[in-house]
Amino acid sequence: MTSTKYDVLGIGNAIVDVIARCEDPFLAANNLAKGAMTLIDEARAGELYAAMGPGLECSGGSAGNTIAGLANLGGKGAYIGRVRDDQLGTIFRHDIRAQGVAFDSAPATSGPSTARCLIFVTPDAQRTMQTYLGACVDLGPDQIDEAVVAASGITYMEGYLWDKPAAKDAFRKAAQLAHKHGRKVSLTLSDSFCVDRHRADFRDLADNHCDIVFANEAELLSLYQVKSFEEALPHARAKKDRIFAVTRSEKGSVAIQGDRVVAVPAEPGVNVVDTTGAGDLYASGFLLGLAQGRDLAQAARLGSICAAEIISHYGARPETSLKELAASKGAL
Amino acid sequence: MTSTKYDVLGIGNAIVDVIARCEDPFLAANNLAKGAMTLIDEARAGELYAAMGPGLECSGGSAGNTIAGLANLGGKGAYIGRVRDDQLGTIFRHDIRAQGVAFDSAPATSGPSTARCLIFVTPDAQRTMQTYLGACVDLGPDQIDEAVVAASGITYMEGYLWDKPAAKDAFRKAAQLAHKHGRKVSLTLSDSFCVDRHRADFRDLADNHCDIVFANEAELLSLYQVKSFEEALPHARAKKDRIFAVTRSEKGSVAIQGDRVVAVPAEPGVNVVDTTGAGDLYASGFLLGLAQGRDLAQAARLGSICAAEIISHYGARPETSLKELAASKGAL
Repeated sequence: MTSTKYDVLGIGNAIVDVIARCEDPFLAANNLAKGAMTLIDEARAGELYAAMGPGLECSGGSAGNTIAGLANLGGKGAYIGRVRDDQLGTIFRHDIRAQGVAFDSAPATSGPSTARCLIFVTPDAQRTMQTYLGACVDLGPDQIDEAVVAASGITYMEGYLWDKPAAKDAFRKAAQLAHKHGRKVSLTLSDSFCVDRHRADFRDLADNHCDIVFANEAELLSLYQVKSFEEALPHARAKKDRIFAVTRSEKGSVAIQGDRVVAVPAEPGVNVVDTTGAGDLYASGFLLGLAQGRDLAQAARLGSICAAEIISHYGARPETSLKELAASKGAL
Repeated sequence: MTSTKYDVLGIGNAIVDVIARCEDPFLAANNLAKGAMTLIDEARAGELYAAMGPGLECSGGSAGNTIAGLANLGGKGAYIGRVRDDQLGTIFRHDIRAQGVAFDSAPATSGPSTARCLIFVTPDAQRTMQTYLGACVDLGPDQIDEAVVAASGITYMEGYLWDKPAAKDAFRKAAQLAHKHGRKVSLTLSDSFCVDRHRADFRDLADNHCDIVFANEAELLSLYQVKSFEEALPHARAKKDRIFAVTRSEKGSVAIQGDRVVAVPAEPGVNVVDTTGAGDLYASGFLLGLAQGRDLAQAARLGSICAAEIISHYGARPETSLKELAASKGAL
C-alpha cells in the first residue's frame, strides 16, 4: 500500500444550506418531521422557502461538512459531489476549495440547479431539514475517480447517498475501489428515517462493506431494530475489526471496536445555538484522529471538540480554527 | 398629510453579502483599505473571491439592512432596490420580504448579476467591504414609485447610491417627492471615503435637502472638514429642525437637533464578533423611534440596542427578535 495523498475522501450530496429560525408550531403547520431530513421536490422547496423566515446561506452537505471540518483541523481532504454551474454551485465549490479540500467534480452544465437544504432551527437548537437534491441526481459511478480513491486513506460516504440508483452505484464502486487499493471504507448512517427506509441495505453495508461506521443512537437502534443502546452493543461489537462510532448528544459518544468500548463525554460549557452538522463534525475529528494513528479515545475526543464548535453557531462549517481550538485543549 | 402606510421607505443598493474571516496581513497583501467600502468590478470580485476563505452568505445592502431591522423591530417598512432574476437576487428578495418588508422592484431580466459585497472580517471584528454593484446599476428614477414615497413617513437613502448618474437621479426624485407629500427625507453618509469623493454634493444634501442625517464620527468630520467632534458640532446644529444622529462606536451616539444635543452610551456587555451593519441597525432603531414619536434620547437608545445585537454575530441582518429584545430592556 502506497502512502496517502489524502487522509479522507468524502463522497456525498453537494448542498448549499439555507438556515432560518422558526418556532415549533411552524413545523407542525407545515407538516415537517422535527429533527429529520426529508427529501422534497422543487415545487415543495419553493413553497417552503416562501413560508420560511429570512435566511443565512452556507455550504453544507453531510460529507462536505465532514471533509471541510477535517481540512480545517489540519487534515488533507478530497471531495466528490455534484453541483450545477450556477451561483449556488459556485459558492459550494469556492467554500470547500477555500478550506483546502481537493474538489474536482465537474459541475453539471444542464439539468436541475444546485441542491439546497432548507434548515429550520427551533428555539431548542434542534434542526429540521428539507432537502431538494437538484444537481446531486447527476452523481453516478462515472464521477468516482479511481486515482483519488486510491490516494485516500479512508473513503467516507454518507447514507443520504442511498437514494437514487446512480448514487448507490457510485457508492458501491467507491467502496470496491477503496478496498482494492487496500484503503478503508467508512459510512455514516445519516438519519434514522434513512435507516428505516433502507435497513437491509444499510445493515449489509455496515456489517460487510465498511471498516468505520458512524451513527447516532437512534440510527444505531433502528439499524439493529433494538430498543436500547445496551441491546445494540453486541451487534456493534460483532465484527472484531470494524469501528463503530456512536454519538449520543449531551451524553457524549462511544467508540466501539470488538472488545474495546470507549465512552467519551461531550465537551462541557457549550452554548448550543444550532445542532446542524454536529454528527458531521464529530466525524471530521474522529476520522482525522484515526488517520493520524490515534487511539479510539483520542479520536472520539477530537470528534467531540469539533462537534462542540459547530453547534455553538448557525451553519455546519467551522467559524474558527478547529486546529487551534483542538491544540489549545491538548487534543492535537 | 394623510396617515402613513409605511414608517420608513429605504432606497439603496440591493446586495448579498459574502462574509469571511481573514487576518490583517491578508488585507495588506490584497491592497484592501481596512474598514472602508470600495467599489470593484466583476473581474476584481472574481479575483478576490478566489483568494477569500470559506464564506457565509446573507442578504445585505446598507438601506436594506436598516429596513429589515426596522421591520424586525415591529415597524412597517418598504424598500426600493434592484436585483437580477438570479439565485442571489431570489435570496435578497426572499429575505427582505420574509421580514415583512414591502419590496416590489421588478428584478432586471438581463445585464449584470445581483450585487455582491465581499466582507472581510479581521480578528478585531472590523469589516472591510469590497462591493461589485452588478444589477444595482439598473436603479434609476423610473424605479421610484411616487405612491410608495407618498405613503412613507420617512424616505431613507444611503450615500452609497451617490455613484452612478441614474442612481443620483433616483435619489433626487425620491427626495423631491417625499417633500412634495409632506414627508421627511433621511440620508446616511455611509462611508468616509464616499464623503471624500462627493463632499460638496453630500454637504448640499445634508444641509439643504434632508431632515434626518446619519453619520459616524469620521464621516461627520470629513463632511465639514474639521478635526474634532467639538468643531463639527456647530455645523451639525446649524439647521434648527434637522436631526443629526452621529454614531461614535464604543463611545455610543449623539443625537443633535438645533439646541438639543443628547448623548447616549453604547449598550454594555456586547461580545463584538463582526461590526458589519452597526450603523445600519442603529438607523433602524433611531428611525422607528422617530416614527413612533419618541424623543431623541429614546430613539438613540433603540438604535444602540439594535446595533449591539447585530455586532454580536456575523451578518447584518438580525438573528433574534429585536422587538422582544428592545421590550425586554424597557426601550419599546
